[in-house]
Amino acid sequence: MKKVNLRNEFDSIKKYWTQKIIGEANGSILKLAKGIGEINWHKHDDQDEVFIVYKGKLTIRLRDKEDITLQEGEMFIVPKGVEHAPKAEHDVELLVMGINVTSNKEGGKPEWSY
Amino acid sequence: MKKVNLRNEFDSIKKYWTQKIIGEANGSILKLAKGIGEINWHKHDDQDEVFIVYKGKLTIRLRDKEDITLQEGEMFIVPKGVEHAPKAEHDVELLVMGINVTSNKEGGKPEWSY
Repeated sequence: MKKVNLRNEFDSIKKYWTQKIIGEANGSILKLAKGIGEINWHKHDDQDEVFIVYKGKLTIRLRDKEDITLQEGEMFIVPKGVEHAPKAEHDVELLVMGINVTSNKEGGKPEWSY
Repeated sequence: MKKVNLRNEFDSIKKYWTQKIIGEANGSILKLAKGIGEINWHKHDDQDEVFIVYKGKLTIRLRDKEDITLQEGEMFIVPKGVEHAPKAEHDVELLVMGINVTSNKEGGKPEWSY
């Protein structure tokens, strides 16, 4: 049982779109991520995905719907099964919550980021 | 599917220790709360409880363990079954996550706050 300093954890992330697990509660996993660029279109059939922006701006594109643009301090929940494609023109820092780690190839991590 | 601005939601909370639900994902409920003063000792046998401080300072007292003091941008997860008593000497703003709303009498909401 230790507290977590989000700023320190963000600073320790060296690789874009890599998710760092910072905690687990009631079957949900809390993760931090940094990113720039675009993640390809994907969906998660097994889980809702929570995004809270801590720094920068994140655009979440949704099929046949208006883009959601999140500024610092804003949250959006992508429901399970909904196709989405996050995009950040500049550095962005995010808290992401789901039931497992989604930043792998199957979860929509782009090829170029490997 | 709408985004949530945490600052606006915090500003809309007029009653201390009242939790405002801002979202639900994978069976977890995301809530915002404002507080000052002390919450009495209690525990949740059915759920872990996540605290992330957005403003101010929160001390989480734990039985037979050192207090956890959270500043802005810090997180602590109280595991299920662990007795705790949150305390804020000045105004504090929190994101709280659990599987249901805990800010009732059984969840440790103090009598004087009704």
